[in-house]
Amino acid sequence: MGIFRKSIKINTNGLNNFVNITENVIDVIKQSKIKNGMVFINSLHNTAALIMQEDDSTIHRDLVNTLEKIVPLKGEYEHNYEGNENAAAHLKTNLLASNLTIPLENGKLVLGTWQQIFFIEFFEPREREIVVTIVGE
Amino acid sequence: MGIFRKSIKINTNGLNNFVNITENVIDVIKQSKIKNGMVFINSLHNTAALIMQEDDSTIHRDLVNTLEKIVPLKGEYEHNYEGNENAAAHLKTNLLASNLTIPLENGKLVLGTWQQIFFIEFFEPREREIVVTIVGE
Amino acid sequence: MGIFRKSIKINTNGLNNFVNITENVIDVIKQSKIKNGMVFINSLHNTAALIMQEDDSTIHRDLVNTLEKIVPLKGEYEHNYEGNENAAAHLKTNLLASNLTIPLENGKLVLGTWQQIFFIEFFEPREREIVVTIVGE
Repeated sequence: MGIFRKSIKINTNGLNNFVNITENVIDVIKQSKIKNGMVFINSLHNTAALIMQEDDSTIHRDLVNTLEKIVPLKGEYEHNYEGNENAAAHLKTNLLASNLTIPLENGKLVLGTWQQIFFIEFFEPREREIVVTIVGE
Repeated sequence: MGIFRKSIKINTNGLNNFVNITENVIDVIKQSKIKNGMVFINSLHNTAALIMQEDDSTIHRDLVNTLEKIVPLKGEYEHNYEGNENAAAHLKTNLLASNLTIPLENGKLVLGTWQQIFFIEFFEPREREIVVTIVGE
Repeated sequence: MGIFRKSIKINTNGLNNFVNITENVIDVIKQSKIKNGMVFINSLHNTAALIMQEDDSTIHRDLVNTLEKIVPLKGEYEHNYEGNENAAAHLKTNLLASNLTIPLENGKLVLGTWQQIFFIEFFEPREREIVVTIVGE
């Protein structure tokens, strides 16, 4: 059993940018030489989320609209000194997730037919860091 | 340290069917012979969720009603070409989770008194696959 | 590769008490002598959540207000025989999370600049148990 870890750095386009990071994660797996185990994916940010979802922009827009109903950009927030977008971004992140775990088998991610890994930017265009850790053999 | 993995296949009854999979997970643990470590549970679907919750149908119905308020079946969705139930199912899945991790000690899941593991079907009656991975010794 | 596990016990002040448990988790890491791997944090409760978030009370109050909109204390719940606070607490827990995974590197949690680990009490003042498991070398 061994551990391999590497960060993925991405540049986002700003509010509600869905970035498919599945291939980035697969690259780290290849570098690791680990074939069986678990893959842990961690966003180091409080204003961006990680989800499993289909690579279908209609679903992504529906998710954006659903979150806007719960945490409207024109709502009232105490944490408004970096703007409402920032406050809403913190809340959306907690409603979704900032860490994922995925099985690894025979060198491949164990995903459903339609599952892809997305990083969602909820704030401004930023360089973001996602840590990928592989534990296995 | 070793790794053991096995899929659980279940047949769901359709929309809002809560399936208690705790015993299914315990079966996989027994087969694994692993006594201490972590148990990773992954749903391979985008229209069904995994949660920890009490085995109490009143809570389950309250959760269904809460999700209906956020993601109403009669709402408007861009991803409507498989029906609103499908669109809403994708969104509910992201608001809950599709992976869980649970500690394993002395061959037993470390759960609170009232914690059970539920798979929630948000779409149609389906055969569903849940991957259980045990890492430990 | 080894496994180390220890429970953290905390006493909460009741509804919407955010408890920063980052230092408690760091204490367990020090005791473990494990330097590289993954840290798994599990709440054993259905009426309290675990989140990653900034240590900023304005965000915490915004999160409380957002959850109150989704799951109002004056709402109608079937699971009302322990009071609406209890019913709402169950639902809030599922909307957030009850387990977190965090990378461990050189004896330190891999966290973003503003990420801290919070336990949120959604019910009454209680003694609560959080299980910390470290897998690594």
